[in-house]
Amino acid sequence: MQDSNTFSERKDKAQIEESSDFAPKFDADGLIPAMAIDATTKEPLMLAYMNAESLKLTLEVGEAVYWSRSRSEIWHKGKTSGHTQKIVEIRTDCDQDAIILVVEQIGAGACHTGRNSCFYRKVVPGSPAALAFTQSDLSFDPNAVYKK
Amino acid sequence: MQDSNTFSERKDKAQIEESSDFAPKFDADGLIPAMAIDATTKEPLMLAYMNAESLKLTLEVGEAVYWSRSRSEIWHKGKTSGHTQKIVEIRTDCDQDAIILVVEQIGAGACHTGRNSCFYRKVVPGSPAALAFTQSDLSFDPNAVYKK
Repeated sequence: MQDSNTFSERKDKAQIEESSDFAPKFDADGLIPAMAIDATTKEPLMLAYMNAESLKLTLEVGEAVYWSRSRSEIWHKGKTSGHTQKIVEIRTDCDQDAIILVVEQIGAGACHTGRNSCFYRKVVPGSPAALAFTQSDLSFDPNAVYKK
Repeated sequence: MQDSNTFSERKDKAQIEESSDFAPKFDADGLIPAMAIDATTKEPLMLAYMNAESLKLTLEVGEAVYWSRSRSEIWHKGKTSGHTQKIVEIRTDCDQDAIILVVEQIGAGACHTGRNSCFYRKVVPGSPAALAFTQSDLSFDPNAVYKK
């Protein structure tokens, strides 16, 4: 895939931080982290990764397309479950090595465990530190959605 | 540093996703991504990385402590500029390989460019894609804060 049509080449600090050139930085594995947040509530939904192809597809399709590190393949979120993420806005940061997807989450939730958000636990400091559930009720039945 | 006092050992999917064990997964470089969001507005502020030591310090100090990949050192955010991030809540996701810091941003902003948030530009699809500024006004003078 020819990505030079979509992304600009990275030049210098001024271009990367203060210009309108979109020149994302992919890491040694060719990936950039992407945090999806709910457009209405601003609640963080999930953090996943994109390679250049999936970022390009996200821009073209208008839905979140990630790179699955576990399956090593393009992952069009919700394509089988129906729980797609409609893109409202895409943002990048000062050094363009992170992406935020502001999305409309279609269906009951983003998390494969059945919750609306993957961030359903908070850390309680201590020795050892522990987790406390902030959302224990399921938004949907993951067995019904993913194992049909 | 002995981290076994702070973190639990990762065992299986049930423990990682559905228990109260805090067993964060650090990548091949020993890092985990951490997104800081504003506790009041829920606006994403920045995405940085933590190693085990900085995550432990964050829990102990109650302020965001990252690992600087460019300087290869512990980075207590705002220690010199005064722009610290007071921890309100720390969350992790289903597979515990990402962190969200819900913070009270002290001082005028989180970004070294002088903006409140590092995510001050949105992507405009096209060939090539471009960036549009969503926050062009500076919240503070970075020269005054960082180059004293």
